[in-house]
Amino acid sequence: MVPAYPPAQRRLKLGFVGGGRGALVGHWHAAGVRLSNRWDIVAGALSSRPDVAMASGKDWLLAEERTYDDFRKMAEVEAAREDGIDAVAICTPNGHHAAAAEAFMEAGIDIICDKPMTATMDDARKLVALHDKSDLFFGVTYTYAFHAMVRQAKAMVAAGKVGKLRQAHIEYVQDWAAGAQEKETKQSGWRRDPSQAGRGSVTGDIGTHAFHMLHYVLDEPISEVSTRFHVCGGAAAMEDTAFMQLKFGSGAPGTLWCTQAAPGNACGLRMRIYGDGGGIEWDQEFPDLLHYTPLNGATQTISRGFGAGMMPEAERMVRLPRGHNEGVPDAWCNLYIELAVAIEARRSGTTLAPNMVDIPTVMDGARGVYFVDAAADSHEADGAWMPSWYDG
Amino acid sequence: MVPAYPPAQRRLKLGFVGGGRGALVGHWHAAGVRLSNRWDIVAGALSSRPDVAMASGKDWLLAEERTYDDFRKMAEVEAAREDGIDAVAICTPNGHHAAAAEAFMEAGIDIICDKPMTATMDDARKLVALHDKSDLFFGVTYTYAFHAMVRQAKAMVAAGKVGKLRQAHIEYVQDWAAGAQEKETKQSGWRRDPSQAGRGSVTGDIGTHAFHMLHYVLDEPISEVSTRFHVCGGAAAMEDTAFMQLKFGSGAPGTLWCTQAAPGNACGLRMRIYGDGGGIEWDQEFPDLLHYTPLNGATQTISRGFGAGMMPEAERMVRLPRGHNEGVPDAWCNLYIELAVAIEARRSGTTLAPNMVDIPTVMDGARGVYFVDAAADSHEADGAWMPSWYDG
Amino acid sequence: MVPAYPPAQRRLKLGFVGGGRGALVGHWHAAGVRLSNRWDIVAGALSSRPDVAMASGKDWLLAEERTYDDFRKMAEVEAAREDGIDAVAICTPNGHHAAAAEAFMEAGIDIICDKPMTATMDDARKLVALHDKSDLFFGVTYTYAFHAMVRQAKAMVAAGKVGKLRQAHIEYVQDWAAGAQEKETKQSGWRRDPSQAGRGSVTGDIGTHAFHMLHYVLDEPISEVSTRFHVCGGAAAMEDTAFMQLKFGSGAPGTLWCTQAAPGNACGLRMRIYGDGGGIEWDQEFPDLLHYTPLNGATQTISRGFGAGMMPEAERMVRLPRGHNEGVPDAWCNLYIELAVAIEARRSGTTLAPNMVDIPTVMDGARGVYFVDAAADSHEADGAWMPSWYDG
Amino acid sequence: MVPAYPPAQRRLKLGFVGGGRGALVGHWHAAGVRLSNRWDIVAGALSSRPDVAMASGKDWLLAEERTYDDFRKMAEVEAAREDGIDAVAICTPNGHHAAAAEAFMEAGIDIICDKPMTATMDDARKLVALHDKSDLFFGVTYTYAFHAMVRQAKAMVAAGKVGKLRQAHIEYVQDWAAGAQEKETKQSGWRRDPSQAGRGSVTGDIGTHAFHMLHYVLDEPISEVSTRFHVCGGAAAMEDTAFMQLKFGSGAPGTLWCTQAAPGNACGLRMRIYGDGGGIEWDQEFPDLLHYTPLNGATQTISRGFGAGMMPEAERMVRLPRGHNEGVPDAWCNLYIELAVAIEARRSGTTLAPNMVDIPTVMDGARGVYFVDAAADSHEADGAWMPSWYDG
Repeated sequence: MVPAYPPAQRRLKLGFVGGGRGALVGHWHAAGVRLSNRWDIVAGALSSRPDVAMASGKDWLLAEERTYDDFRKMAEVEAAREDGIDAVAICTPNGHHAAAAEAFMEAGIDIICDKPMTATMDDARKLVALHDKSDLFFGVTYTYAFHAMVRQAKAMVAAGKVGKLRQAHIEYVQDWAAGAQEKETKQSGWRRDPSQAGRGSVTGDIGTHAFHMLHYVLDEPISEVSTRFHVCGGAAAMEDTAFMQLKFGSGAPGTLWCTQAAPGNACGLRMRIYGDGGGIEWDQEFPDLLHYTPLNGATQTISRGFGAGMMPEAERMVRLPRGHNEGVPDAWCNLYIELAVAIEARRSGTTLAPNMVDIPTVMDGARGVYFVDAAADSHEADGAWMPSWYDG
Repeated sequence: MVPAYPPAQRRLKLGFVGGGRGALVGHWHAAGVRLSNRWDIVAGALSSRPDVAMASGKDWLLAEERTYDDFRKMAEVEAAREDGIDAVAICTPNGHHAAAAEAFMEAGIDIICDKPMTATMDDARKLVALHDKSDLFFGVTYTYAFHAMVRQAKAMVAAGKVGKLRQAHIEYVQDWAAGAQEKETKQSGWRRDPSQAGRGSVTGDIGTHAFHMLHYVLDEPISEVSTRFHVCGGAAAMEDTAFMQLKFGSGAPGTLWCTQAAPGNACGLRMRIYGDGGGIEWDQEFPDLLHYTPLNGATQTISRGFGAGMMPEAERMVRLPRGHNEGVPDAWCNLYIELAVAIEARRSGTTLAPNMVDIPTVMDGARGVYFVDAAADSHEADGAWMPSWYDG
Repeated sequence: MVPAYPPAQRRLKLGFVGGGRGALVGHWHAAGVRLSNRWDIVAGALSSRPDVAMASGKDWLLAEERTYDDFRKMAEVEAAREDGIDAVAICTPNGHHAAAAEAFMEAGIDIICDKPMTATMDDARKLVALHDKSDLFFGVTYTYAFHAMVRQAKAMVAAGKVGKLRQAHIEYVQDWAAGAQEKETKQSGWRRDPSQAGRGSVTGDIGTHAFHMLHYVLDEPISEVSTRFHVCGGAAAMEDTAFMQLKFGSGAPGTLWCTQAAPGNACGLRMRIYGDGGGIEWDQEFPDLLHYTPLNGATQTISRGFGAGMMPEAERMVRLPRGHNEGVPDAWCNLYIELAVAIEARRSGTTLAPNMVDIPTVMDGARGVYFVDAAADSHEADGAWMPSWYDG
Repeated sequence: MVPAYPPAQRRLKLGFVGGGRGALVGHWHAAGVRLSNRWDIVAGALSSRPDVAMASGKDWLLAEERTYDDFRKMAEVEAAREDGIDAVAICTPNGHHAAAAEAFMEAGIDIICDKPMTATMDDARKLVALHDKSDLFFGVTYTYAFHAMVRQAKAMVAAGKVGKLRQAHIEYVQDWAAGAQEKETKQSGWRRDPSQAGRGSVTGDIGTHAFHMLHYVLDEPISEVSTRFHVCGGAAAMEDTAFMQLKFGSGAPGTLWCTQAAPGNACGLRMRIYGDGGGIEWDQEFPDLLHYTPLNGATQTISRGFGAGMMPEAERMVRLPRGHNEGVPDAWCNLYIELAVAIEARRSGTTLAPNMVDIPTVMDGARGVYFVDAAADSHEADGAWMPSWYDG
């Protein structure tokens, strides 16, 4: 039995670090937060530049007194308030996630951290250790995994619909870095700066999404990786393209390709899973559809909605009827619903049913960072196999 | 020049009539309201049954004192409050829209009314007349028209991309009423009850969306209609299917087909416009894509995002980058942003730039009802042409 | 049980009337003939203009002595030859089909006649009567019905996969007549000349294909039609667009839309069939795929090949493995295989198994012409219902 | 200027070695041969088993005296006949191509050889050397490259539409070997037997198609390959799956994935080419469509036909109007037309315009075999880079 989400008794209070003017991802978090109707955004250190922080707070209609320009101060003040935030969403550039997470954990505030969790494994290990010592909640926002039909894919795999895994492929294909150098430089910003992005530029930015989705859906480690990086857009200090081969825990092979330089592709996160019992295919640009072919059968297009092939784990996420497109904000909403359920439970001391939520943990966050490092190590060794699974 | 939407200075206060437990459409309004971050939902008469009203108010985390079970009382109390609602969203079954709109207009509260605006032309005329005498805002939620790529279609037509209109076709194809009678009876509820649905069951429910989208995008009256109704699902008191032929103001012909009994179709609202300069095709189930073929050229797929064929009128609506699917909640969000901009302007006495918003008016609402009647008249006359455009 | 086609013992000998230089359809017949490997093209009166006839015969590598410029002479000479043709393929403009068919029937030669069979019902009745008095074979080339997946659709309908028919829709949408008048005039030729095209221009040219496909697949008469014609391309003497409503023999309703003036559509013959047990959709531009949705189930894409949902009646037509696209020449090949099987059986006095071939008859040809007339009659009566089914 | 193909003056005479009962590929050759109307199939050693050879000859309606059970005898007898064959099509299992080609070259007969040209590089080198010493024509049937829209892709690349190549990807994905072992064993036959298939099972069977298509369209060597083989279907002696990374002559990187064990994929040969000026995507299962995205522009779907974005090199291949699907038999037809043009020219001593035909040569055949070996070498070295381009 798959339980329904418990209804909200109140809206939790959320603060943001990063995500203000000029940042994309803050708006995406906020969209999911708002759609979920389980949170109020009440505080923020939306930028490290005071003027941008203030202007962004105004954009978001935050109270002035809860618009901060220093996340440490925010942690301190919010922890002290009677009506202080229940959780913080960390959306800064990758290199600053760890310090922010540390500050809020120390203040006893639950953590919602964007991916990749940190820019270095040192930082990742530190967060895992800190979390181990606390009783706080720590979730990482691999949000594409919260499209209802990705949950459907995971449930179908778990139910044996594809049989024994024989190979799996994932790609994440974009085009914003294709073409002239100038455009890329302007858009890529810190994504091509090793001091902020860590060791993997395209890998940290989008490859880590692909890595997470695959092991999350398959519920299987990705044990080893063989990688070669490339620059396929304008001249850049760091790679915009990676070709990878994977070994899963069960021994099955796979591939992962990510690029930001393939004209005609906007957000092509596409997953293909093949077993001895069938195949599953999913494309993020058409998120409400999942294609399933039982071995030697006709291909079925399962469409998000009630019944007609839906698994209960995914049906539970359905809000709009079939054919009424749910998109990226809805994936964020699905995630922020489960976050609210989990954080409310922790704070109220309630025990959740075992399969009530399925949120990437601090360990999953560390795995993503470890994978970025493993890919970079492999690239530096011209594609030699490297262990790519972190287990603490 | 297409101006950007003015930033919000505050969140407007919104109340709901109808839309509580067991009703679909209230949740859709609420999704757009929340995503827009320009409104707080603070009051509601979410059902006419007191117990359902209270339970629904709790679901929505409304304050108890602002959870009403009588919309007239709500209008009166909210109008008297210092912090009373700025506008009301009316989402009851169609037959109750008029009374609610009347009550809130009398209380001086701006109106956001679901479609079809009323169940009868008498009611529609009454609302038009009431609105004429007031200075209130009155908008009707033909929400599919607020998908960014529908705005794109409208802008392309206006810019002459299809040339002179030669024919246009629209269909709205669903399947929830296909098959056994019992299922239909349970789902269709008031939609097949003439006392609540007015004279057009499928026409009022979905045909009116198709009618609105076509004249909205073409910016051209639909002057005459020839209709035949059918029951293609279970036995039903009212039609679930309508075949129509249309005459546009310019003389061009068209068709409209709507049905709720076509297995394999969930929400297939599909529009095809052909002129002597090109063709445009759009499908609601893939709302971020618009297909444009210039005469004798290759077909272009224009994808919601910045640049790459986007018209400024549609680009203004873009929040997520290309490839990051925006769905039905985003269309509702687009609508509730324009509603907030328009209502804030009215209340603050600001004059908006002429093309700042493009929201269906009370007159458009009346046109939708008039069309439902015209279709029913034509059906009763075995498909004879009937005038189908209301101009007051 | 569905029998396999009997293997060919020899290649039958085929002659052509019409189809030479400047004519499209002759090449399509010839493609199917050649692919089938059951025929040799040995004679032809490929044009009524002697120079074109000779040049066309040379193009086709016909023997000079069997290249005719007069079909009556061809009928006479070929009938007299020891090695004369077994059958004639008639591909002239529509208005000339009847005279040619008459001549070859009188010469005792089997008839393969392009559609529409004749330009007038008088001619159609004459051919039916002539055929009744003979023991000759007479087939009409509604070739789209010979895509393997159309046969699949027919077999699925017959097997009850869609249940009781509730509505059916077909459209045939092209764009060659869109835009400037000059282009149309050059391309449309006799298609817009009532003296050659009969009473229905677009109806005779492509509407008749749609009409045939629908009653063929459903195995149900189309009893009545309500039609309005339009000119949606350049100024033209005859319609390029028709909007129709249909009544099937069982009482179910349907629509038929055909146009040659919809920019972005090349050969969009699309069929949608809905019953109380499921729905079937097929699009000629993707002929190897058929979409089937059982009531309340997931949509299945059945792909031409062996197994995986294929019905034996369609599987029998499969030559290439799944995914190796079969196109329009293959539909012609399927047709010419069944023609060869039927004509060989007639000439050798063999009795075929009852479901060995399923070829449109002279009566089906007359039905197509009758439908064109009925549509024109209805148009002239502003869409009044007209009987549209001919039964002799 | 792109010249039209010269009209046929006669049909050339063709013999077959292999391709009889139980073999797929012979029928495909024959389909193209017949459709082209430039050849008569007059002789064959359709199997090495005399009974199968005779039965197959009867299936094909060959004269008994020209139905052989020994290709050497066939070469000898046909070379001696006044009306002997102009060319031979070799469709045996791969391991027998070389001996047959040798025998017919020695008899002075032009060679049309299926791919991969040979099972070993020794054999490939021998054929190259033999051909160098002769004045015979030698073509290799990489037929997918003869879809009109692949020619279109090649012409667009040559015209600079994608700019400088930055990355390219190709995959060939099938599913016939997925699932239970028994099924695979029955179907795979010699494809998994190293003594007949050479060193690459899936690579020789389908990977070599992908390799050819990519270098043919890009007109650029594939210099190095890094490969790992896998068995993803039933247990098998040889690989059914290969993951490859590629280096092009210009230094751009690429990938090639081929598998016969991915449920839901029938013949998914898909090519994606990205440069600094745009991207091209093509899928063999929808062969008439090519997707082209100019940098920062909307994606165009170019559809096979006249005008609307077609390049003259591809337009020359068009027989059916746009939207009238051309499939795999038409690709074979395109190839056999160019083969007839080239062979007729050689035999008549005519010099063809330089870009009249574009047929894979014996050297291209050798390159395909070399690539199979290079892939196997790399696999044996756990993915180490191996030189993969043969230049004699």
